[in-house]
Amino acid sequence: MNYNEKALELHKTHKGKIEITSKVPLENSNDLSTAYTPGVAEPCRAIHSNKDAVYTYTAKGNLVAVVSDGSAVLGLGNIGPEAAIPVMEGKSILFKAFANVDAFPICLKSQDIDQIVDTIEQISPVFGGINLEDIASPRCVEIERKLKERLDIPVFHDDQHGTAIVVSAALINALKLVNKTIDTVHIVVNGAGSAGNAIVRMLIELGAKEITACDRRGIISRDVPQNNWVKDEIAQLTNVKRLKGTLAHAMKGADVFIGVSSKDVVSSDMISSMANDAICFAMANPDPEIMPDKALKAGARIVGTGRSDFPNQINNVLAFPGVFRGALDARASDINGPMKIAAVHAIAGLVGKNDLRDDYIIPSALDHSIARAVSKAVYQAAIDSGVAQI
Amino acid sequence: MNYNEKALELHKTHKGKIEITSKVPLENSNDLSTAYTPGVAEPCRAIHSNKDAVYTYTAKGNLVAVVSDGSAVLGLGNIGPEAAIPVMEGKSILFKAFANVDAFPICLKSQDIDQIVDTIEQISPVFGGINLEDIASPRCVEIERKLKERLDIPVFHDDQHGTAIVVSAALINALKLVNKTIDTVHIVVNGAGSAGNAIVRMLIELGAKEITACDRRGIISRDVPQNNWVKDEIAQLTNVKRLKGTLAHAMKGADVFIGVSSKDVVSSDMISSMANDAICFAMANPDPEIMPDKALKAGARIVGTGRSDFPNQINNVLAFPGVFRGALDARASDINGPMKIAAVHAIAGLVGKNDLRDDYIIPSALDHSIARAVSKAVYQAAIDSGVAQI
Repeated sequence: MNYNEKALELHKTHKGKIEITSKVPLENSNDLSTAYTPGVAEPCRAIHSNKDAVYTYTAKGNLVAVVSDGSAVLGLGNIGPEAAIPVMEGKSILFKAFANVDAFPICLKSQDIDQIVDTIEQISPVFGGINLEDIASPRCVEIERKLKERLDIPVFHDDQHGTAIVVSAALINALKLVNKTIDTVHIVVNGAGSAGNAIVRMLIELGAKEITACDRRGIISRDVPQNNWVKDEIAQLTNVKRLKGTLAHAMKGADVFIGVSSKDVVSSDMISSMANDAICFAMANPDPEIMPDKALKAGARIVGTGRSDFPNQINNVLAFPGVFRGALDARASDINGPMKIAAVHAIAGLVGKNDLRDDYIIPSALDHSIARAVSKAVYQAAIDSGVAQI
Repeated sequence: MNYNEKALELHKTHKGKIEITSKVPLENSNDLSTAYTPGVAEPCRAIHSNKDAVYTYTAKGNLVAVVSDGSAVLGLGNIGPEAAIPVMEGKSILFKAFANVDAFPICLKSQDIDQIVDTIEQISPVFGGINLEDIASPRCVEIERKLKERLDIPVFHDDQHGTAIVVSAALINALKLVNKTIDTVHIVVNGAGSAGNAIVRMLIELGAKEITACDRRGIISRDVPQNNWVKDEIAQLTNVKRLKGTLAHAMKGADVFIGVSSKDVVSSDMISSMANDAICFAMANPDPEIMPDKALKAGARIVGTGRSDFPNQINNVLAFPGVFRGALDARASDINGPMKIAAVHAIAGLVGKNDLRDDYIIPSALDHSIARAVSKAVYQAAIDSGVAQI
């Protein structure tokens, strides 16, 4: 059986992947009287008189909603809320497995920005954090920004910030190997959706000076009107030289290619045209912009993808479990810039300088020590940046 | 330690009562590839091409939302969504313990009818059923009716129908002991909220002809305008003799007293004024309308309460786990009248005629065979009444 058949069988056998279980015994009438009536009235009263006690007496402090409207699921597109559930359940069990975060899938009927924001706000009392997932750009960016204003719990759109964190960590380590610095390299980012936007912003925060962003139409320039406001933002932040032309043109002489776009859009010739010691992160999922063997053969020195069956897997699971663990432990009101940057350095730091190799720039997604290191760094950054509430 | 202290400690130690766990292994990269990317795309595709497959490949078919706005929690009143969480988590673990239903607490910020209905509709794709809980009357009745129209999954307000089911089951058995029939007894229902309304409706469906309902102001009569439309409905259904006066007046000569009201509103004299072999269900929680020993001393023959520390505990946990188990197993689009009546007879039938005693009219809430019997009956009724979708 291939992965697809195995996946169907697994999901069918178990009827999905999540289960809601009890942390307390329910064997006898004493148990019932403390976990339920009449005893349960007491924690209710305690929270009623001090709302903050909700973190003491309920699951809220460890509970994250994984929310999607099903509009941009994996590479499958707008498949709707029901078809998005397997991904959201998957994300939920990854949260639990890697960081002991209880996460629950919420798939929404509407794809309207305000209706999504209102609904998430309405259900927020039981959650300690909101993880947005697989919502089409540019709506996802607006939804996240509105929620961050309205809610006092952390909101994190993983496709934006999770991706930006792991790409940045991988790039920091790759640059060490090729002895280049982030402020001198020319970086091409292909894909100008929410992930591309977040990557551009984070690389700039980390010191990048020369970024060229491309979409399907080629190089994005502030001289040309874009078809949505997220691309307008990217245009303002990138391409200081006001280049015009195709992706192939952008990649000539570039040091770094970062793809968050689609299958097979990068050719061997495009890789060969890059600078020496070229770094190529081809992260379209499941089929990358260029297959790793092809990119290496064309002259790239360091190649990463989103896939588990090649070296240098640049996967969000390296980031989101630890990011939320740290934010929840600190009872952070936000997941802010300093917390995300702390996550970048924590992930990069997990591969020691002596262990770094061209095919080992980032730890394995299955390494359970990652979430611990990330959560510790994020927790400290939450405290240092003043958003912790403990 | 008393129940209150024990309950606080239990809730604090475990930080709430629910946990989201995985039903599938996540040990190695193979597991990751089938439970998450790339394999997870396959069940997504299957659901996208046939929405019905959401019941095959996700947790939806076994997942119930326990929804409250915190406006009428236990006897504590309008304590808000955060303070309601311990009760909703408690309900969730009862669902799991008694019927292996996965239930998740949703506590809403708004107490506006349309906002509540919209929010529940928005989040409905992941759920197989909606259990409404602790929402103030008459709003709860309107919310339930609107949701039943809008959703294709079962919606059940436990405070209405769960209560009506267990009260009806207890009454059927109590009447056997005193050799009276439901169509000849005079029944007084005290409390004209959503529970009172549902009890009145179900008793009529079971054949009751003479019901007098009371609220704080006394006997409800269609000759007097009521202060909300639920009471107007009750007025239309009850008190054919157009009685006026106090609860004490109503209870004179009555065969059955059913209290869903508040502490200590029934005196010994009121019980003494009832007919021979009086049945008294004093279900105010945690403190009943009259304490059982006092009611028995005053001449009541059969006494029930909502409490676990007295005989004849008339508790909703006898009904809701099995009702939802049966509805989910049948993939019922509704929990309708025949399904509720089936639950009544299933619960009543669990105490065999030879086992019936004045202090044993209803099975113990901790008996796990109840949910099985109830679910079987509800499942069959769903099929027979044409709402099953399997």
